[in-house]
Amino acid sequence: MKVGILGATGAVGQKFIRLLQGHLWFEITALGASKRSAGKEYKQAANWIEDVTLPEEIASKTVKMCEPSEFGNVDFVFSGLDSSVAFEIEGAFARAGIPVISNAKNYRMDPTVPLLVPEINPDHISLIDKQTFTGDGSGWIVTNPNCVAVPLSISLKPLHDQFGIDSIALTTMQAVSGAGYPGVASLDILGNVVPYISGEEPKIRPETSKLLGAYSGGSIEELEFKLDATATRVPSINGHMLSVSVKFKNAPSDVSEVVEAYQNWENPIADLSLPFSPEQLYLLHENEYYPQPRLHADFNNGMSLHIGRIRKGEIFDVNFVALAHNTIRGAAGGAVLNAELLVKKGYLKQ
Amino acid sequence: MKVGILGATGAVGQKFIRLLQGHLWFEITALGASKRSAGKEYKQAANWIEDVTLPEEIASKTVKMCEPSEFGNVDFVFSGLDSSVAFEIEGAFARAGIPVISNAKNYRMDPTVPLLVPEINPDHISLIDKQTFTGDGSGWIVTNPNCVAVPLSISLKPLHDQFGIDSIALTTMQAVSGAGYPGVASLDILGNVVPYISGEEPKIRPETSKLLGAYSGGSIEELEFKLDATATRVPSINGHMLSVSVKFKNAPSDVSEVVEAYQNWENPIADLSLPFSPEQLYLLHENEYYPQPRLHADFNNGMSLHIGRIRKGEIFDVNFVALAHNTIRGAAGGAVLNAELLVKKGYLKQ
Amino acid sequence: MKVGILGATGAVGQKFIRLLQGHLWFEITALGASKRSAGKEYKQAANWIEDVTLPEEIASKTVKMCEPSEFGNVDFVFSGLDSSVAFEIEGAFARAGIPVISNAKNYRMDPTVPLLVPEINPDHISLIDKQTFTGDGSGWIVTNPNCVAVPLSISLKPLHDQFGIDSIALTTMQAVSGAGYPGVASLDILGNVVPYISGEEPKIRPETSKLLGAYSGGSIEELEFKLDATATRVPSINGHMLSVSVKFKNAPSDVSEVVEAYQNWENPIADLSLPFSPEQLYLLHENEYYPQPRLHADFNNGMSLHIGRIRKGEIFDVNFVALAHNTIRGAAGGAVLNAELLVKKGYLKQ
Amino acid sequence: MKVGILGATGAVGQKFIRLLQGHLWFEITALGASKRSAGKEYKQAANWIEDVTLPEEIASKTVKMCEPSEFGNVDFVFSGLDSSVAFEIEGAFARAGIPVISNAKNYRMDPTVPLLVPEINPDHISLIDKQTFTGDGSGWIVTNPNCVAVPLSISLKPLHDQFGIDSIALTTMQAVSGAGYPGVASLDILGNVVPYISGEEPKIRPETSKLLGAYSGGSIEELEFKLDATATRVPSINGHMLSVSVKFKNAPSDVSEVVEAYQNWENPIADLSLPFSPEQLYLLHENEYYPQPRLHADFNNGMSLHIGRIRKGEIFDVNFVALAHNTIRGAAGGAVLNAELLVKKGYLKQ
Repeated sequence: MKVGILGATGAVGQKFIRLLQGHLWFEITALGASKRSAGKEYKQAANWIEDVTLPEEIASKTVKMCEPSEFGNVDFVFSGLDSSVAFEIEGAFARAGIPVISNAKNYRMDPTVPLLVPEINPDHISLIDKQTFTGDGSGWIVTNPNCVAVPLSISLKPLHDQFGIDSIALTTMQAVSGAGYPGVASLDILGNVVPYISGEEPKIRPETSKLLGAYSGGSIEELEFKLDATATRVPSINGHMLSVSVKFKNAPSDVSEVVEAYQNWENPIADLSLPFSPEQLYLLHENEYYPQPRLHADFNNGMSLHIGRIRKGEIFDVNFVALAHNTIRGAAGGAVLNAELLVKKGYLKQ
Repeated sequence: MKVGILGATGAVGQKFIRLLQGHLWFEITALGASKRSAGKEYKQAANWIEDVTLPEEIASKTVKMCEPSEFGNVDFVFSGLDSSVAFEIEGAFARAGIPVISNAKNYRMDPTVPLLVPEINPDHISLIDKQTFTGDGSGWIVTNPNCVAVPLSISLKPLHDQFGIDSIALTTMQAVSGAGYPGVASLDILGNVVPYISGEEPKIRPETSKLLGAYSGGSIEELEFKLDATATRVPSINGHMLSVSVKFKNAPSDVSEVVEAYQNWENPIADLSLPFSPEQLYLLHENEYYPQPRLHADFNNGMSLHIGRIRKGEIFDVNFVALAHNTIRGAAGGAVLNAELLVKKGYLKQ
Repeated sequence: MKVGILGATGAVGQKFIRLLQGHLWFEITALGASKRSAGKEYKQAANWIEDVTLPEEIASKTVKMCEPSEFGNVDFVFSGLDSSVAFEIEGAFARAGIPVISNAKNYRMDPTVPLLVPEINPDHISLIDKQTFTGDGSGWIVTNPNCVAVPLSISLKPLHDQFGIDSIALTTMQAVSGAGYPGVASLDILGNVVPYISGEEPKIRPETSKLLGAYSGGSIEELEFKLDATATRVPSINGHMLSVSVKFKNAPSDVSEVVEAYQNWENPIADLSLPFSPEQLYLLHENEYYPQPRLHADFNNGMSLHIGRIRKGEIFDVNFVALAHNTIRGAAGGAVLNAELLVKKGYLKQ
Repeated sequence: MKVGILGATGAVGQKFIRLLQGHLWFEITALGASKRSAGKEYKQAANWIEDVTLPEEIASKTVKMCEPSEFGNVDFVFSGLDSSVAFEIEGAFARAGIPVISNAKNYRMDPTVPLLVPEINPDHISLIDKQTFTGDGSGWIVTNPNCVAVPLSISLKPLHDQFGIDSIALTTMQAVSGAGYPGVASLDILGNVVPYISGEEPKIRPETSKLLGAYSGGSIEELEFKLDATATRVPSINGHMLSVSVKFKNAPSDVSEVVEAYQNWENPIADLSLPFSPEQLYLLHENEYYPQPRLHADFNNGMSLHIGRIRKGEIFDVNFVALAHNTIRGAAGGAVLNAELLVKKGYLKQ
């Protein structure tokens, strides 16, 4: 299938390009960026920051404006657009009958737009049928959640299914790549911790509530729970670390039940053999010093969710740490997996 | 007053040496270290890691064995000994009639030993009278708490006084200097987060309970509260950052009452003009990106407690972050302040 | 004396503000910045990045436009202006009869403008008399060199005086603060080395040639030497490290003569008791692991020059490493010292 | 072929294990380490620091003593032994008829031991025939050079072949992984530069001289050249950066000839299709900000040599920077490539 990348020169756009090299199903045929970049060769327009070689066939492609008329031959687009322009551009593509698999935040909380993590809420895909961008259903938008809501919701799903979530205390230690490029100034973060990330905490609850919500009759009933969240930035490159405490509605009698909840949970997309589906979704670490961003974020191509330090709490039923690669599992890689699921479900087609 | 340093070549010992340069009351006259160092000049024995020049009068001093007979002319000693040897050596000094102001953990939970933060529990000093190292009260031990318990208890004291603590959720982001030297391997922490610090979490509750406990009739009634704590290591040099959530027995109606609790709290040692007492104990930051270890840990010579991001929670009554210099306020500097208070109280004398 | 700061909100401007707190001779009475900041309180206009508290009297000052008419009551100004605007603004101040002590590069190579390091070329001050900004000599400009040329020229001066420089091979390892704020992106430098700094290498030779050049008859005869320089960026905060190799015209017979050249060199401003003059200009380290940016850059308030690893070479007569604080000795602190010298020489007066 | 790993629990040993997973020709069948580890399962004995999962079949293997009698069924061994024990143990294996492909320094300068980089001096292999560990030639030792000599000699080889090397000025910026584990203390290197690495500089010249020396009649005529080298440590994880300046015997008339020398150079092992041979040995970067350790060290599985910033000098004929992965190309990966070449040459066989 032929795919376009919107926002192709930015950090997320670059990650899409990297991840899609050699993809079994998808081939990049169009790159879109801002007016400033349009008309240039990609290698001139982009400051390539990935730690692999920029593929030659991408390097020499001419960047287009992000207008549907320029993307006539694609089957769908991935969007790594900045939120300042994503609402308008993604809408225009959908109205033009070009499906949009977006990493931007703008449509995430739209009640007709799936906020999708394939393993967690694949049934939410049906929301697409409610979208009215076109009369014939040819154009629509699917989004993936924020890079904290992704690991949080994945880490909670098996526990929620079994014990029911009541309340969550969360402190995040987030990698600098989450702020894009140039993003965090080195003078701000070298040898430092910054206890605040603008706009981050307010996304966590609504997105997690929607993700873990129940689909019924064409809409999502968002999950209600209490949340106290503190988002901090630390000098790691990739991999958001979460310190999570959870109280359940039906408390497990023992922490071993928590471990078993992960081990026994059935992945609803396990049989679909999606190319970006990790061999193991949950990696439970017994070594108390694990998981670590530098050592583990790239496991299984950055698509696994790492859990460590599962312990019984005094206030909460369980405390643990969770880690996922923020720009792969938590952004571009999640979007690719979304697209793969949408192919299997028949929404994306040539 | 003449003071000796036990464990003088280690990271804490070096900090004592640095902090005591030019001290108004205390002069270092003896340096003690292990058998391997004894007999050498200090500059040969120690791998000086402080970012100031090693003072010449210290550099040329001959290191002694940590035996009371070698410290005949000191009025008291500071101990930066490793916990593997502190129990025995500190006990020997106390029994020899030499007061020990210790940073080691070994005697912290001894019911007759004050675990002292001068601003928090100065009345606990009276415990000294229960000690039986000598018959005449000439030898005794006072300790300062762990580098997490210090900022935690200081940040909680005004809130506990006013609202009464019920439960605490805590995630720490601790600097590498907390592990001493060589301490944390660079391969473990560069661009990384390690979600576990051996032995750290189990110290936090008992020490905080004792610190915030009430002195009565010669003993401490430890404070009871629930605690869920996760201690992590991040690549900062100095300054432990704490993400703290607290539920009170008598909840404030508004978060502004929390701010006022800090502002109105009366520092019991404010009038004593102790040299190491910071001009401001509590620095409340309004900038949401503050406090930060690299920017703020050294304020007021590393003796202040920084609070930021005071917010109302959903589970907890208040969430905030706290920061203090771990090897100054949380270790050697706290011990010096302890000694200064003990001078004023008449326990230490020439 | 009353001083103004041009470019007061930038990284260099902030350093001027920090360094001048409590200065014996100079008091900041006016702050100038861009149109975007003018009219705001300084604390609103600036993103304060220094690791000390923003002084209250500065915080509440209203920022002015960088126009001479706004600086009527100052005796002179320090300029931390960006080079994109410094030529015009600094010229305007000089023409208005307000002396400018500048850190910007624009006038450095002007043949009538002293490129001044007080210990190295104090006689170059006489160039001021050639300046024609005003008819009465009331307005003029003095500059300090680039943050590499400063430590390079200071490290070379005693050797040049004694042996005569023939050629220099140089590799720098420069701290991120040298790029200002936001400056270097954390994604570019965390755990990394960047082997190029735009515009840096071309400044090193001409500035060093002028600095070490001889003043004679109203002009500077620049020093000729060969130079191969490579400027790199490393993840340190403050302190540029230089790996220097030098061949002389009259080679020392032994490396000990190099050490003696430093020890015997007479500092021409030693008797002036300038407040920013470091107690020791040259700190020669015998420990082979020294100097180090994190440990030593701040020594003597960041105004010393550190030399280490002095060794005889096979190609060059001597190899050594040099270190100086790039934003203090190599920028704002050097400018303050320049001003102090100009006071003593009678050029700056109330 | 069945291979054993000596020093299997150390940093280099771990790298051997990682690199040999799925190797086409070699299978690890025996792991040797110190007395302290012998008898334990590998996962208990080793503190696994690689950023991939420890393979299960290795994790459960029992670690042996490093004695030849314990390695009866291997065809040869890789040695990642510490130099304090490598001389004796490697000699014992060779005498027992077990070929040793070593990363240790002990035998590197032995006149009968090849110091081998397959692309540079494959003809040096013939030295093996001079070894007398056994009477029948069944046991012998081949070494790979130090992690600086490797990129230096590879970067110089095409230039030396064409222009003849006269003298070299070198400053290295070396990654922390070069010091093994725990290696460099985080307190020493976080936000810092250390201008000295014990024992590093003295290895560079003899090893490079031997590597680039001519094999003739059973011995190596070492290359003579002048060298001034400064080795520093910087806070990068993997990838040693070299700032190199070279003067030739027959100077190129233009720097473009230097570029052509790389482009036209013929790799003597290009036709052998060795599994660890990189697709491109030389990656010449035109982007002045490249190469960078974090972005490029892992290219081509860490086996390429990166060159950037090729410029004409004033003292030297050319200045450039070179980068290679220090623990892969500069250590374990180089050793694996050595073994592969020795298989093709018939020295290693089942």
